[in-house]
Amino acid sequence: MKDLIIIGAGPAGLSAAIYGIRAGLDLLMIERFSPGGQVMNTHEVENYPGFVDPVKGWELMSAMENQARRLGAEIINGEAGAIIKDKEKNVFSISLSNGKSLIARSVILACGSANQKLNIPGEQEFTGKGVSYCATCDGAFFKDKVTAVIGGGNTALEEALFLTRFASKVYLVHRRYEFRGEKILQQRILANNKIEPIYDTIITSIEGKEKVTKAILKNKSTNEKKDLLLDGVFIFVGYSPNTAFLPEELLNTRKEVIIDKNLQTKIHGIFAAGDMRENSKRQIVMAAADGATAAMNAYDYLQEMG
Amino acid sequence: MKDLIIIGAGPAGLSAAIYGIRAGLDLLMIERFSPGGQVMNTHEVENYPGFVDPVKGWELMSAMENQARRLGAEIINGEAGAIIKDKEKNVFSISLSNGKSLIARSVILACGSANQKLNIPGEQEFTGKGVSYCATCDGAFFKDKVTAVIGGGNTALEEALFLTRFASKVYLVHRRYEFRGEKILQQRILANNKIEPIYDTIITSIEGKEKVTKAILKNKSTNEKKDLLLDGVFIFVGYSPNTAFLPEELLNTRKEVIIDKNLQTKIHGIFAAGDMRENSKRQIVMAAADGATAAMNAYDYLQEMG
Repeated sequence: MKDLIIIGAGPAGLSAAIYGIRAGLDLLMIERFSPGGQVMNTHEVENYPGFVDPVKGWELMSAMENQARRLGAEIINGEAGAIIKDKEKNVFSISLSNGKSLIARSVILACGSANQKLNIPGEQEFTGKGVSYCATCDGAFFKDKVTAVIGGGNTALEEALFLTRFASKVYLVHRRYEFRGEKILQQRILANNKIEPIYDTIITSIEGKEKVTKAILKNKSTNEKKDLLLDGVFIFVGYSPNTAFLPEELLNTRKEVIIDKNLQTKIHGIFAAGDMRENSKRQIVMAAADGATAAMNAYDYLQEMG
Repeated sequence: MKDLIIIGAGPAGLSAAIYGIRAGLDLLMIERFSPGGQVMNTHEVENYPGFVDPVKGWELMSAMENQARRLGAEIINGEAGAIIKDKEKNVFSISLSNGKSLIARSVILACGSANQKLNIPGEQEFTGKGVSYCATCDGAFFKDKVTAVIGGGNTALEEALFLTRFASKVYLVHRRYEFRGEKILQQRILANNKIEPIYDTIITSIEGKEKVTKAILKNKSTNEKKDLLLDGVFIFVGYSPNTAFLPEELLNTRKEVIIDKNLQTKIHGIFAAGDMRENSKRQIVMAAADGATAAMNAYDYLQEMG
């Protein structure tokens, strides 16, 4: 039986492992893909403190992974299913997709979230090369460049406004005639002369060579197609926390894990860290801090349990 | 007038600058010593995620500083005094010790905290070379080593228990006949056969060559002196947040800055990040995450203010 099982090996999970092992806990990590999480799809990271020049996403995560491994972390490949608590013994049983199950005295959930994809040609190919799902992360790379934001909700409007601080032009492409975001954001959008809304329109493909150079738009009423020359496409059509395997009682209406100030979920002994928890800003340094916090609190929990 | 002034250039302040500049804010940093904060006194950092091997404290902080500077951060040397809000204009005036003052639309406090020192010979000389103020940070470096913990409050007792996960022996040196920490911690201390309490005793000096090898203890009743051979001395006799220049209304009874879930203080437009705020666990990655969060929230605040 392990002291702690960490589900997910992105920044939150790896940081939890670093802190957990250094607190003397006997722990195990479970990851369904390869370690590193969503950052692996990020071309360059400029805002993780500690690196003078931008660092490649995979390089940063490979450093975190090797740091955890050097300290003794073991990462097994597998997908977690149900987590069942034996309330008599205060022990958790985690079933894996291969039919086996693991037993631990505490659990940290660090499964991240997934950006909703458009699933159009070029989207995956140019991710990190002009296609982005985070303006806070990548906006500063688009100084004096032409960009398009896809979406019409609050996030799309906020991120479009944010981008005007860098980009020379922000097309705001929305499939409906009206934005869903708050009125005050809509007003700011309309008052901003760098932003040009394009309504009733979808994006059908993203093109380029090394980097994005063009998007193809289609008007939904006329079916007319149009080329848009640009350097960046920011896609904000939603995201979903990777929480499908968790019981409803742990989640809010947005399917994020509900946590208290110690990052503990509604089940004593299960903690949540990073992008899958409520109120996450989906930033690497915040996920890493969450992981560290969750591990320190799991340690305290285990001490109390004796 | 600046959008944002950041007071303090440790991990929290530098991270706030990185995020603030990348959000397009015109900001300025004020630091009373040289940038880097308390981490500059840390020999090796093993738990900041992203570095496979332990990194020197000064190296990590110099990377953060240069990262902020490369993005355009300006750091001026100075000590902040009173912060006065012009409630009509929603503008802050910060007086400096040189008599000048600065004006900004928002403020992030990131001034850190200071460990209470024993002020005995060898303490400063061997800081980071066997003398530590943080078991979470440095405990893992003392596997199978002999250590002493100085203090008798909750932190001292918790950290002594934590150290038993690594050290072969933990002397717990306390100047009184009884510990101040919680009864349950006292019970765990007494039940742990790696811990040997030494009551009614102070430590008068720390000796060694490259690293600590010895502590000199003095019994307070008999004045008898005694050598204690050891590898590490962990000092937990209190710490104080650097908040003396702030108005009482912003602080709790422990003189830490009170914050809401957005890291905003009781004064709208002033945020606090890192070790000086309440409920801080005083870890680098958490301070850095705080700085990033405070900067993102300062950006939102400025957007709202228009």
